[in-house]
Amino acid sequence: MTIKAVVFDAYGTLYDIQSVAAVTEETFPGYGDIITQVWRIKQLEYTWLRSLMRRYEDFSVITKDSLAYTIRVLGLKHDAATFERIMDKYLHLDLYPDALATLERLKDRKLAILSNGSSGMLNALVKNSGLDRVLDAVISVDAQAIFKPAPQAYMLIEQRLGVPPAEVMFVSSNPWDACGAKAFGLNVAWIERVTPEAMALACVKSDAVPPLTMFKALRTQMDELGVEPDHRIHGLSELPNLIARS
Amino acid sequence: MTIKAVVFDAYGTLYDIQSVAAVTEETFPGYGDIITQVWRIKQLEYTWLRSLMRRYEDFSVITKDSLAYTIRVLGLKHDAATFERIMDKYLHLDLYPDALATLERLKDRKLAILSNGSSGMLNALVKNSGLDRVLDAVISVDAQAIFKPAPQAYMLIEQRLGVPPAEVMFVSSNPWDACGAKAFGLNVAWIERVTPEAMALACVKSDAVPPLTMFKALRTQMDELGVEPDHRIHGLSELPNLIARS
Repeated sequence: MTIKAVVFDAYGTLYDIQSVAAVTEETFPGYGDIITQVWRIKQLEYTWLRSLMRRYEDFSVITKDSLAYTIRVLGLKHDAATFERIMDKYLHLDLYPDALATLERLKDRKLAILSNGSSGMLNALVKNSGLDRVLDAVISVDAQAIFKPAPQAYMLIEQRLGVPPAEVMFVSSNPWDACGAKAFGLNVAWIERVTPEAMALACVKSDAVPPLTMFKALRTQMDELGVEPDHRIHGLSELPNLIARS
Repeated sequence: MTIKAVVFDAYGTLYDIQSVAAVTEETFPGYGDIITQVWRIKQLEYTWLRSLMRRYEDFSVITKDSLAYTIRVLGLKHDAATFERIMDKYLHLDLYPDALATLERLKDRKLAILSNGSSGMLNALVKNSGLDRVLDAVISVDAQAIFKPAPQAYMLIEQRLGVPPAEVMFVSSNPWDACGAKAFGLNVAWIERVTPEAMALACVKSDAVPPLTMFKALRTQMDELGVEPDHRIHGLSELPNLIARS
């Protein structure tokens, strides 16, 4: 079987969402980390809850709502300008250092993003980071009005690229996304990023792991959802060799 | 409009799931709180993820899988016996102190539980706590093979009790459950429980709130999901008066 297309998740996979923490810390000194963690938990929850409730709103709405929740719950105040400043960071996220070089090495295949992001957010982000020159398609779940890991979201790959699931390698660092893609029938490479938090968790076998470190580490660990991705890699740069072997 | 049936969520609404923390602390000294928090986050996530992935497994499987995840991620070891001992607590949860008296005061209406729990877990729990004498029905989402807040779950109320949504008062302390029920069309009373963590959050407007307190408090705050429950109460004992007025 040949891999004809490589499709990437965006947030946390090609783009480093931890770079948002710098802006939240600057805006709310002392709160940067806790805001980022609570925001991310709620952002994900709201995508799943709204999908199940059949009350889809696009990812820009969900990202704003989950930030509003976080700021309210922490007893902080914000005006429209600070809010916009934090939200704007989502359009200017940093690429992981090995992202561009990896995509260029893979350019003999079809390359795309499949993301929960709204079309507006994704197009701005891809343009700002220069990925528009190497990608064949930027696919938003918007078209189906339901979020990953619903099968309707992964279905968009074949619809847009004309490549069947068995010939697609899907790449995500999000464990639930890797499981969802595998359950749908794609070939899946999960990126297990070795973050400082994951290291702390792996080394310390006592109650000395501070809770915030714990919660940061949660997103780096494979879930128990009854499916396993096909491949486990530790960075994007391992992909070209993996795909050449497939 | 008359309320002909009052339907309760089980975990966190009639039954205090914090009582699980005592068993986890006893089993893993120093880890009781962090296990309980991570376990609950993952338990909820897995209900939503499996529903969206169309890979339903009942709540007893999800509860075991999310506990296995938590123990693994914390670098702890367990044998089958400790695992069973913690799981068994789910069949012997404490009722909130005002639960039984409230149900007895409402017995001129149809009374039921609608829960994510599996039929096996719920029947054991209801029997062990003596609620089988006051409830007309114990409804598990098992029958639809999808978890709340999917509409198919709330649909079971009319199917089982023969009472249309407009004549049902649904009661839950889980913000996402209250929103899901409201989006479906039920009358909804959300119980905002004033926990020590919620108090800490309300009083302290600095970064002095420890992260674990923060995460505990998260489940007590109303979500931003574009719907609002009809009523906000602070305990089950406020229900009879509320319903008499409705």
